[in-house]
Amino acid sequence: MDWLIYFDLFGVFVFALSGGFDGAKYKLDLFGILVLAVATGVGGGIMRDALLGAHPPAAFLNQSYFVVCIVGGLIAFFFARKVERHFMYVRAADAIGLGVFSAMGAAIAVQSGLGWVGVILISTLTATGGGVIRDLLVREIPLILRADFYACNAIFGALTYLVLHHFAVDDTTTLLSAAIVATTSRFLAIRYNFYLPQARGHRS
Amino acid sequence: MDWLIYFDLFGVFVFALSGGFDGAKYKLDLFGILVLAVATGVGGGIMRDALLGAHPPAAFLNQSYFVVCIVGGLIAFFFARKVERHFMYVRAADAIGLGVFSAMGAAIAVQSGLGWVGVILISTLTATGGGVIRDLLVREIPLILRADFYACNAIFGALTYLVLHHFAVDDTTTLLSAAIVATTSRFLAIRYNFYLPQARGHRS
Amino acid sequence: MDWLIYFDLFGVFVFALSGGFDGAKYKLDLFGILVLAVATGVGGGIMRDALLGAHPPAAFLNQSYFVVCIVGGLIAFFFARKVERHFMYVRAADAIGLGVFSAMGAAIAVQSGLGWVGVILISTLTATGGGVIRDLLVREIPLILRADFYACNAIFGALTYLVLHHFAVDDTTTLLSAAIVATTSRFLAIRYNFYLPQARGHRS
Repeated sequence: MDWLIYFDLFGVFVFALSGGFDGAKYKLDLFGILVLAVATGVGGGIMRDALLGAHPPAAFLNQSYFVVCIVGGLIAFFFARKVERHFMYVRAADAIGLGVFSAMGAAIAVQSGLGWVGVILISTLTATGGGVIRDLLVREIPLILRADFYACNAIFGALTYLVLHHFAVDDTTTLLSAAIVATTSRFLAIRYNFYLPQARGHRS
Repeated sequence: MDWLIYFDLFGVFVFALSGGFDGAKYKLDLFGILVLAVATGVGGGIMRDALLGAHPPAAFLNQSYFVVCIVGGLIAFFFARKVERHFMYVRAADAIGLGVFSAMGAAIAVQSGLGWVGVILISTLTATGGGVIRDLLVREIPLILRADFYACNAIFGALTYLVLHHFAVDDTTTLLSAAIVATTSRFLAIRYNFYLPQARGHRS
Repeated sequence: MDWLIYFDLFGVFVFALSGGFDGAKYKLDLFGILVLAVATGVGGGIMRDALLGAHPPAAFLNQSYFVVCIVGGLIAFFFARKVERHFMYVRAADAIGLGVFSAMGAAIAVQSGLGWVGVILISTLTATGGGVIRDLLVREIPLILRADFYACNAIFGALTYLVLHHFAVDDTTTLLSAAIVATTSRFLAIRYNFYLPQARGHRS
């Protein structure tokens, strides 16, 4: 699958955008925004590669990852001057990146021979790692804790991948379906504001 | 030592509980609590395995770790509805997990052939890593910085392990003694409120 | 280059000092300060080694790293009682460590056969990783996002290393030049308060 790298780079790009818009929200300067774009874009993949023993991680070998992050950060920087509602853009870019990385993480974990729990964990870590780094750096409580069903959406993507892979569906369909299920479920969760019960029985 | 995995899983369970109670304290929803329980339960061990070159870390290979975290998170979720003083439960579960992981970290570092400083560092990292991730995710200053003697308790556990191991005491006794020394010293530090001097000579 | 280890230890020492002074600023007790000194001193190098596949990282094998961190932390602890302006000391120690680690990171990345983007990324990560861990632990927005040109200074160091290495300048001159360029550019940025445009066109 030659196009796999482009699929991965697309995920990196939208996560870099989400990091850039988040930086603009906090009025960081140009370099702060670029740093946040790089950390958000490649953070999840680097964590995945480090845990699976791919040394050095792909983002340090292929300079396309870095270039794509910088482009994403610059677009966020210049576009953010014109728009007011950065928050919406952070969320939308985050949802698309979540889907792409959930599928990529599942594919690489399956290739590494992990069992279904390992696949779900690596997929979720890949899909949410960059966003957690982004939120920690700007001192927000990470979306993965705050947003209802957030991790759940990545898990939906991983499960879709596992089921289609189990029934020997071709790799392209499996990967795209997993990404689409995860991203769509995330948009639905944002749109219809699904929520889960809280421990104390009331919402703060 | 076949029971070693059960000992490790017990540590994962109490740390998952501490993460779950912490999530309930911040009124996270069910999934936020489960995410925090998983991150706290397996975080320290994953950091240890990644640094020692065990790829992929045990938590991704053996699904028991994941299941135990989910059970710990669910118990915290349902029990937290009934109790008011989550903070005390977080601290107590944290103290037990600290001891178990301090002993496990020391054992694995000794097996990896590290020297005494390496053993102490890996033991402390294993014992405190999950808690640091938990505290960072909910934006608290980590216990390891705030709580008097916190890292010290993990170091007591590592030293106990090193001394007993040096005198060729059997592995089971060595491991249990290290865990008991670390946990007991932590409970004593909480109970008697030991404190150390501060840099500016007064407490804030 | 036998003196390379001393150069690295010097970087660890000044970063440990910066962590210690930061701990004093937040009125942590003695152990909190030592923990912060160790995490800041060896954090960047451990992240570098983990990503490049050096298991276990140098800081766990050579106890000098640990001892140097403790000495740095103790000096910060006792000296901080006498001085009021901790912030200035954190920044100055941080700038020197930034230069040393930027050069060390570039040297190790070149040895590992990475391309120029990989060298710049590993150099920047080594130089800024410890500081990011320090700032996250005390809940500040990391300098790498806030401080104008911060990551840029590490990149200047990496580029200096790459250019001199390309023209086959001897290793000692290359390494020292990279460190001096990075640290000097950081001091200039602090002194003259350079800043970059912000996304919204005004400074908060």
